[in-house]
Amino acid sequence: MTRPLRLDPDRFFPADERVRGIARELFAAVENAPIISPHGHTDPAWFAYDEAFRDPVSLLLWPDHYLLRMLYSQGVRLESLGIKPLDTSVTETDRRLIWRRFAEHYRLFRGTPSRLWLDHVFAEVFGLDMRLSPVTADIYFDAISAALAKPEFRPRALFDRFNIEVLATTEPALDGLNHHRAIRSSGWMGRVITTFRPDDVTDPDRADFVVNLQRLGAMTNEDTSRWGGYIAALVQRRAAFRKLGATATDHGHPTARTADLSPEACQAMLDRILQGRMEPRDPELFRAQMLTEMAQMACEDGMVMQLHPGSWRNHNSWLLKRFGPDKGADIPMRTDYVQALKPLLDKCGRKPGFSLIVFTLDEAAYSRELAPMAGHYPCLKLGPPWWFHDSPEGMLRFRRATTETAGFYNTVGFNDDTRAFLSIPARHDLARRMDCGYLAELVATGRLEDDEAAELAMDLAYNFAKAAYHL
Amino acid sequence: MTRPLRLDPDRFFPADERVRGIARELFAAVENAPIISPHGHTDPAWFAYDEAFRDPVSLLLWPDHYLLRMLYSQGVRLESLGIKPLDTSVTETDRRLIWRRFAEHYRLFRGTPSRLWLDHVFAEVFGLDMRLSPVTADIYFDAISAALAKPEFRPRALFDRFNIEVLATTEPALDGLNHHRAIRSSGWMGRVITTFRPDDVTDPDRADFVVNLQRLGAMTNEDTSRWGGYIAALVQRRAAFRKLGATATDHGHPTARTADLSPEACQAMLDRILQGRMEPRDPELFRAQMLTEMAQMACEDGMVMQLHPGSWRNHNSWLLKRFGPDKGADIPMRTDYVQALKPLLDKCGRKPGFSLIVFTLDEAAYSRELAPMAGHYPCLKLGPPWWFHDSPEGMLRFRRATTETAGFYNTVGFNDDTRAFLSIPARHDLARRMDCGYLAELVATGRLEDDEAAELAMDLAYNFAKAAYHL
Amino acid sequence: MTRPLRLDPDRFFPADERVRGIARELFAAVENAPIISPHGHTDPAWFAYDEAFRDPVSLLLWPDHYLLRMLYSQGVRLESLGIKPLDTSVTETDRRLIWRRFAEHYRLFRGTPSRLWLDHVFAEVFGLDMRLSPVTADIYFDAISAALAKPEFRPRALFDRFNIEVLATTEPALDGLNHHRAIRSSGWMGRVITTFRPDDVTDPDRADFVVNLQRLGAMTNEDTSRWGGYIAALVQRRAAFRKLGATATDHGHPTARTADLSPEACQAMLDRILQGRMEPRDPELFRAQMLTEMAQMACEDGMVMQLHPGSWRNHNSWLLKRFGPDKGADIPMRTDYVQALKPLLDKCGRKPGFSLIVFTLDEAAYSRELAPMAGHYPCLKLGPPWWFHDSPEGMLRFRRATTETAGFYNTVGFNDDTRAFLSIPARHDLARRMDCGYLAELVATGRLEDDEAAELAMDLAYNFAKAAYHL
Repeated sequence: MTRPLRLDPDRFFPADERVRGIARELFAAVENAPIISPHGHTDPAWFAYDEAFRDPVSLLLWPDHYLLRMLYSQGVRLESLGIKPLDTSVTETDRRLIWRRFAEHYRLFRGTPSRLWLDHVFAEVFGLDMRLSPVTADIYFDAISAALAKPEFRPRALFDRFNIEVLATTEPALDGLNHHRAIRSSGWMGRVITTFRPDDVTDPDRADFVVNLQRLGAMTNEDTSRWGGYIAALVQRRAAFRKLGATATDHGHPTARTADLSPEACQAMLDRILQGRMEPRDPELFRAQMLTEMAQMACEDGMVMQLHPGSWRNHNSWLLKRFGPDKGADIPMRTDYVQALKPLLDKCGRKPGFSLIVFTLDEAAYSRELAPMAGHYPCLKLGPPWWFHDSPEGMLRFRRATTETAGFYNTVGFNDDTRAFLSIPARHDLARRMDCGYLAELVATGRLEDDEAAELAMDLAYNFAKAAYHL
Repeated sequence: MTRPLRLDPDRFFPADERVRGIARELFAAVENAPIISPHGHTDPAWFAYDEAFRDPVSLLLWPDHYLLRMLYSQGVRLESLGIKPLDTSVTETDRRLIWRRFAEHYRLFRGTPSRLWLDHVFAEVFGLDMRLSPVTADIYFDAISAALAKPEFRPRALFDRFNIEVLATTEPALDGLNHHRAIRSSGWMGRVITTFRPDDVTDPDRADFVVNLQRLGAMTNEDTSRWGGYIAALVQRRAAFRKLGATATDHGHPTARTADLSPEACQAMLDRILQGRMEPRDPELFRAQMLTEMAQMACEDGMVMQLHPGSWRNHNSWLLKRFGPDKGADIPMRTDYVQALKPLLDKCGRKPGFSLIVFTLDEAAYSRELAPMAGHYPCLKLGPPWWFHDSPEGMLRFRRATTETAGFYNTVGFNDDTRAFLSIPARHDLARRMDCGYLAELVATGRLEDDEAAELAMDLAYNFAKAAYHL
Repeated sequence: MTRPLRLDPDRFFPADERVRGIARELFAAVENAPIISPHGHTDPAWFAYDEAFRDPVSLLLWPDHYLLRMLYSQGVRLESLGIKPLDTSVTETDRRLIWRRFAEHYRLFRGTPSRLWLDHVFAEVFGLDMRLSPVTADIYFDAISAALAKPEFRPRALFDRFNIEVLATTEPALDGLNHHRAIRSSGWMGRVITTFRPDDVTDPDRADFVVNLQRLGAMTNEDTSRWGGYIAALVQRRAAFRKLGATATDHGHPTARTADLSPEACQAMLDRILQGRMEPRDPELFRAQMLTEMAQMACEDGMVMQLHPGSWRNHNSWLLKRFGPDKGADIPMRTDYVQALKPLLDKCGRKPGFSLIVFTLDEAAYSRELAPMAGHYPCLKLGPPWWFHDSPEGMLRFRRATTETAGFYNTVGFNDDTRAFLSIPARHDLARRMDCGYLAELVATGRLEDDEAAELAMDLAYNFAKAAYHL
């Protein structure tokens, strides 16, 4: 049976009619504000070369680990979705069949943000008006394929249509940044900038770490086997990223632990790692030290520092072995911030202009640790609800748990944090609606005046992100 | 003063009139669905012999640890409620007096689910129409006593009246299952099945563990002092339980820790335990290993595995010494799943057909660990809110914290988990209403379509439990 | 632009009109109940000498660490607010300028309880009718200054106007209690009592601990270098506090850990500490033992014991060094209660009349540990939401997370816990409104009858605090 696809014009607002009325009014004033996307994972090549996206599967399904993990959790084999194992096993290649398989399981996403984002993309970007289902799978496949062939669905055209003012991608330290250079030299006026994510050269647990340090040395003409040379190389890379627009760095560590070791201890640890004598505590301590080093560099060069801790990457050993990393098997862990961040804060906490934006996957830390810390330390700001918590309930929990202690002004607006380019407007739409709903609730319960709510609605939708990321 | 007892026909639905209207409609379609009770603690002897329940106190008060703990917390001595200490202290035996004492303290249950369940039992099962209070205590005692004497209040009659399609009890590994056998041979058509709960033979911290292993050996004709024989004996017991309808096992460990040791290490540990040389880490490691063993057996025999970790049993030393175990002094603890379950998941996570239903008393794990894990691992499903969280707010927190990441389809419907047989309809009524309220909220806020909500309402009320427990 | 200042008469009630109507009715009956303030930090000198408060800054800004921490977090230097560093740096002294600076940043408090309390003080205590802003800063400064000069704004007059029935302050063990003595001898009838807070003589981590023990010895004529003398000295001090009205003690430890050591082990630990041979584990173990000692004293003398654990005091090293302690840099930590409190509960848990009121900054403990423990142990009660959680959302989370397991009767009503004397009515107003809103929600959703809600509203607003603190 075919059902209509329609986006409720009051979607995500609180149900109460009076609150909803206030939310509606607040939202009307921010709905069309330009999108600031200061943290995300889109591919700069899209904007550099502006080639047409190929098909619904490679555009909408494959890059979206939210979709893959849910399908996998319900017994759908990744091979049947066209995900290639590392060996030579048979993998589905017919994209129409893959799309049909996805459509057959679309019900799994009921109640999840994936469903909300996708329906927004289908309705708003592609103008589809029937719900995705086994019955409509082919209609979708054909309609999306046809649209993607048109010039107005090229990356740059969509960038303009989405009213994106600035979009940050994320590249590792060793990235040559050629795509970003190509964007610059292309004459296109869209503002796409990079972000410095040096986990490739700061995490000794990576199999390629030693090689990466050699590559870093070659790239910067520094001796990265010496602590001083290693640090100097990183300073160089930060500068290279800044030249291509970067205003921020990002750090994806298993924990938030920081350290403040002597240069001698650092050199000794680096020696152990490079010489294959790494001790069990070294990787964590090395990463901890590197966060403090990055903070010190940030004090010098003014880049905003982002910390995304607490994910156990590739938890499923079998899947890792069969398909490699990043197949939707990351699981959050309990994360401490109070003890973990102290060495960094003691070292850099009061350096003027230093800014550290902290994220969490452990919501228990919102009211207990993060809001009190952000509500005290001038350098600390709270990143928006991240990953699994980038959702209606997640956003509400974030505001409810943090605002009363940290206020609004120690938060940084929204991050879409996505590689799903077409969903960027959907994600900002959702975030703006949820924030307006929360503000409306404060107004309706005598906790905020309406002029203040209106001001904050624009701050949360636009101003804070621009200011926090120096955009 | 006597107050009327009335059940609000819209009870537990969200307050907002529009949302409530949607909830009402969803609920109407599932209200009368048969009850699937896949996990609980009723006494199979009731159904085997169908004798009349004796009196309100032994039926409603004594088996209900929720009631005993609350009364005790407010200074009511357990002796005064007829609970016998292990010594020969004077204990109240007059059940009418005990019932009056309970009625005097009925206000303590305001705001708790016990009150909601009991009022439902009083009103719906016994047709009482005044609130329980010191004034009505005797009326209640007499009315309930009189009712229990009637044939229509016998266990099997109530089973039918409650519209129970299937009811699972829980028995330890060493149970002879005579009551279940008696049910089968009685010719009665009610479907009451057992569940395999082997904590009596997998937990070396139990004082009777060594004796229990000998009994297990005798029961199965296996040498349970050898690891292989011990495992074989458990396989036998599982088969014996399956013959009496069991489709599931259950494991009540202090933590969720699992292990994957070599057979040699297992034998050495078993030797230490049986020879009284147990090391401090042995009990936890033994239990951890046994979870993985049980998972492997489940892969073979297809039984669904349930894990209920995280309770510090009998926390009150004085009470334990005076009254023995299980007197309402269990306290939840912080519980890790991400690290704890990895050995088991690495071993069995991808075996086809293996299913592990995980519960928690630590709600911080819902959004941080359990929903992400269930939203990835095909074998993992989330059990419903358990014990202290089997309540309106607890159910709402569960749905809000897990749905956006794990979806609905990685959950397994409701468990009443009770030994309070008469409250089973009350508990399912509450769960169905809360789920319909949550679905209504999603519909009212543009997050779900009404046809989808209707489908999910029946899934949550009936289909999921049946499917997840292979019933 | 000048905006009106108005307090919504329905403020803090749930938004839904039907629920709100119930809340309004419940609140009307408790709105004017006398204030019981059983735990707080006002200065007894105010009531002893009844001198006029000096100015808005020293009355409203400087003692309020909520305000200082938020201003500091947004880059406002404490020196510019008149907070003197320990060195001789230049500090702003012009209180009008300081007030203007505060007014300029008043927007930072949007969405925080500070804003709600302050607006209540401005409107209700001072009759101001325009919102605080840079434009109205001087009007505020002048109006408040003028009011403070009037007799009706003296401490005792405000105490009466606020309808305070009893107000407890908090003093350290070594306090001479002269102000409390002066209150008694003054003939004034206001009931202001002290609370025994012996952290100054029970925490070996304090720099002045050894000196403090000598002072304690001198004060009580006991040999505090002997464990027995030390304990006897504390018993004496408790008695001295009781003479000045104290009914309770309070303990502000980093953790909730308790211990039950032999007298010999206690003496040995005391020796190590006094002789400068303290071991790393000693401070925590000493504090742990002292909680159990205090519990035993409470069993004897009937004082109610309060435990406020889980704050990392003075987390910001630089700020501590520059300004000294207590400048709004305290950060909560994860806090365990289940294991931590066991030694104390094993020792004193069943002593008749013993009462331990537990607070937390770790909300994850509400439903997991604290509600189950309070719902079992007769001596345990739950303190109201504390510090960062003393807020609308914090209160709602507390009720939602604890009521279903601990009920209402294992809670103790509201604590304002403030040194901001003028905000006491605001804080009780907020707490009463939130509780009435929660009760209204239970009524509206069929979980409580209206007569019960009315009874509980008065219990939560007045009766419980009076009973729990023996007032």
